[in-house]
Amino acid sequence: MSELLEKTCTACVAGAPLATEVEIATFSPQIPEWKIEEMDGIKCLIRVYAFDNFVQALAMTNKVGALAEEVGHHPALMTEWGRLTVSWWTHKIKGLHVNDFVMAAKTDALYQAG
Amino acid sequence: MSELLEKTCTACVAGAPLATEVEIATFSPQIPEWKIEEMDGIKCLIRVYAFDNFVQALAMTNKVGALAEEVGHHPALMTEWGRLTVSWWTHKIKGLHVNDFVMAAKTDALYQAG
Repeated sequence: MSELLEKTCTACVAGAPLATEVEIATFSPQIPEWKIEEMDGIKCLIRVYAFDNFVQALAMTNKVGALAEEVGHHPALMTEWGRLTVSWWTHKIKGLHVNDFVMAAKTDALYQAG
Repeated sequence: MSELLEKTCTACVAGAPLATEVEIATFSPQIPEWKIEEMDGIKCLIRVYAFDNFVQALAMTNKVGALAEEVGHHPALMTEWGRLTVSWWTHKIKGLHVNDFVMAAKTDALYQAG
């Protein structure tokens, strides 16, 4: 089990620290399928999951949605035919918190569980 | 009931006609909340629906997903906290078919039904 999966995502508050360069360098290799991209100057973690059809993509949307609701931290979920694009970032601090790496790892675990 | 809601969306095939300027001018006023935007040169219909939380947004995602699956024509659904952005276009013809206006009207009807 990766170090990230052992962590708990705690809902973030304004003023919480952005992930440091060292944290990003430590955790990124644990979620190798995720890319860090900037949207309007805000860094986020993005991964595209591929599926055989729309229903499977939507099922994964619901799994990630349930996880998000459980921890009170919500991603952007772009559901399309055969594809789900998940983006994690922390709205309150306009960037990446360690929580986001935790959630990315948990999203991968949901996908692998099928 | 709008004229669009009386139509049936038929799954589109390559070679089907793009909506004409006249059709676009006729149907757009029936779905006034939708904007026509271009993504990579492909026109699509886009509307953002607002909700009070994530769960409500995801519930609407599932309603639109069920409708899409029923007719075999699938949108892009961006689910976020308090917001769902729906995009309809016809992949096979790389643009807007009359079907897409029909689906936009049906999506509005789902939203209004609550």
